[in-house]
Amino acid sequence: MSTSSVPSTAERPFGTVTVLGLGVMGGSLARALSELPGAPTVVGWSPDARERDAALAAGAVSRAPAEWRDAVADADLVVLAAPLRASCELLGPVASAAPAGATISDVASLKAPLGDAAEAAGVADRWVGAHPMAGSEESGFEASRPGLYRGALVWTAAGAAAAPRVPAVHALWKSVGAVPVAIEPEAHDRLVAKASQLPQLAANALATVLAGAGVEPGQLGPGGRDMTRLAASGAAMWRDLLDHPSPDLIAGLRALSAELERLAVLLEEGDLDALEQIMRTTREWRRR
Amino acid sequence: MSTSSVPSTAERPFGTVTVLGLGVMGGSLARALSELPGAPTVVGWSPDARERDAALAAGAVSRAPAEWRDAVADADLVVLAAPLRASCELLGPVASAAPAGATISDVASLKAPLGDAAEAAGVADRWVGAHPMAGSEESGFEASRPGLYRGALVWTAAGAAAAPRVPAVHALWKSVGAVPVAIEPEAHDRLVAKASQLPQLAANALATVLAGAGVEPGQLGPGGRDMTRLAASGAAMWRDLLDHPSPDLIAGLRALSAELERLAVLLEEGDLDALEQIMRTTREWRRR
Repeated sequence: MSTSSVPSTAERPFGTVTVLGLGVMGGSLARALSELPGAPTVVGWSPDARERDAALAAGAVSRAPAEWRDAVADADLVVLAAPLRASCELLGPVASAAPAGATISDVASLKAPLGDAAEAAGVADRWVGAHPMAGSEESGFEASRPGLYRGALVWTAAGAAAAPRVPAVHALWKSVGAVPVAIEPEAHDRLVAKASQLPQLAANALATVLAGAGVEPGQLGPGGRDMTRLAASGAAMWRDLLDHPSPDLIAGLRALSAELERLAVLLEEGDLDALEQIMRTTREWRRR
Repeated sequence: MSTSSVPSTAERPFGTVTVLGLGVMGGSLARALSELPGAPTVVGWSPDARERDAALAAGAVSRAPAEWRDAVADADLVVLAAPLRASCELLGPVASAAPAGATISDVASLKAPLGDAAEAAGVADRWVGAHPMAGSEESGFEASRPGLYRGALVWTAAGAAAAPRVPAVHALWKSVGAVPVAIEPEAHDRLVAKASQLPQLAANALATVLAGAGVEPGQLGPGGRDMTRLAASGAAMWRDLLDHPSPDLIAGLRALSAELERLAVLLEEGDLDALEQIMRTTREWRRR
C-alpha cells in the first residue's frame, strides 16, 4: 500500500515493491525480497505471460497483472528491470501511473540516460537509480535466483532533489545482502565503460579470435572459459547499452589493442624481463 | 615398488607414484591419489622443506625425502610437477635415477620441449607427458586441493615408442576424476598457444589497461573479475612458458588487437547491427 511520500529507512523501507521486468535482474530481486522475513508485498509484471506465470508459481511475486499500470497502482517503490531503452521510455509513464509519492528506481547498467529521462519527465525528485554489479550470461526468469545480489556491489545514483529517498533504496538493497554505494550518474557511466563494458567487449573479441582459429570451447581450460564466459551474454541487451558509447569505452578498446600489440612485440623480441614485470604488476593490482 | 617395464592398465596402474614438485599441480595430484581407495604409495619431493613437511602433514605423501634421487628410487611412475624449464632439465637425470622400467611423466603446459628432452636423454620410450587443463592463480602446496582435477581435460602426449605406456597414464588420470585425451605434442602446443596462452596474456593486457585507467579491482563486477582473474597468475611460471613463444600466440595477440580496433570503429560509426551480429556469433560459439 502506498503510505508516505518519502519512505522510512527501517528494515522494511517499502510496503509494496513493484518490479517491472521479470528476467534475471528483476526476477532475482523479486525472489530475494519475497524470501525476506517480514517481506514487502512484491508485485511483478513482464510483457511475457509465461514469465508472469513462472514468477507467480515460484512465489517470487504475490500478484502479476497483465498490464503494467495495474502492477504499479499501489507501489511505494517501482523498480524498472527492463533493458536500458525500455527503462528510459517507461520511467515517465510509470511515475505518472504510480502513486504520487512512489519512488522510481531501475537496474540498468547506465545511469545518466535514466537521470535524463527523469529530468525530462519532471520526476527527478522521485528517481533513485541502481546498478547491481551482478547478473548472468543467461537470461529470463528461469535464470533468476534469490542469491544473485548477495555480496554484490550496487551503485546507486540520484540527483540532489531525490537525495532524501536514497537511504531507503540503500536499505532495500542491504536487505537482500547487497552493498549499495552512492555515485554521481556521469561518474558511474564513465567507470562502467571501463570496468564492465570493456571486459565485455574484450570477451567478445577473444571469442571471435578463438573461433576463427578453430578452437572449440571444450578445449578451453578454466582460464580460457573465464575469459570467454561473457561472450555468451545477450546481444539485444548490449545493443541498447552500446547505442551511445562512452568515449572511455572507445579509448579503452584502443588502449587494450595497443597493449596486445606491445605484448606481441615483447614476445618477438624475447624481452622476458619486461613480460615478467608486466605480469608482476597486474598480479599486484588484481590482489589489492 | 618397481614391478614390470610396462605397467598394467588396471584401476591401480602404478604401485608407487613419485611426484617431484609439491605446488598447486603436484600437491593436488598427490592429495588426490592418496585419497583413493587402494591408493598407490605416493612419494613426494619439493626443493622447499616447508612444502615437503606440509605435504607429509596433510597426508598427501607417505614419504618426502630431502633429495629427489631418494624419492624416485622405487617409483613405477615419476611425475615432474615443476616449471617447464626445470621439468625439461630434470627429465633425463630422473629417468636415469629411477628404476629402468619406470614411466616418466610431467604436467607442464607445453609438450614439445619435454618430448625433445626425452629424445635427447634417450628415454623417449618411457616418457608420456600430460597437461591438465586445471590450475590456480594461487601457487604453492597451500593452494593445492584433491579435487583440482575432477572433470578436467588432461592432454597426454607421447611418441610412438612410449605408446604402450599411454593407457596406464590415462588410467591414473581417470582415477582422480580427470578426462585424459591423447594428442600429438606439436599439435598440443599450437592449440595451447591459442586456448590457454592467448587468454592469459589478454587478461594481463586488460588488467594493465584497467589499472592505468584508475579502476580498482573492487569496482569490478563478476564479469570484470572473471576477465582479470588470470592477471594474478604467477609471473615466474609464465616467463618459462613464453621463452620460446609459438607463432600462433603472436598471431593470436595481433588478431585480438585488430579485433578490438574493429570494435572501436564499429562503436564510433554506430554500427549496432554489426556489433549485435558479432555478439550473437560469439554467444553461439561459447554455448556449443
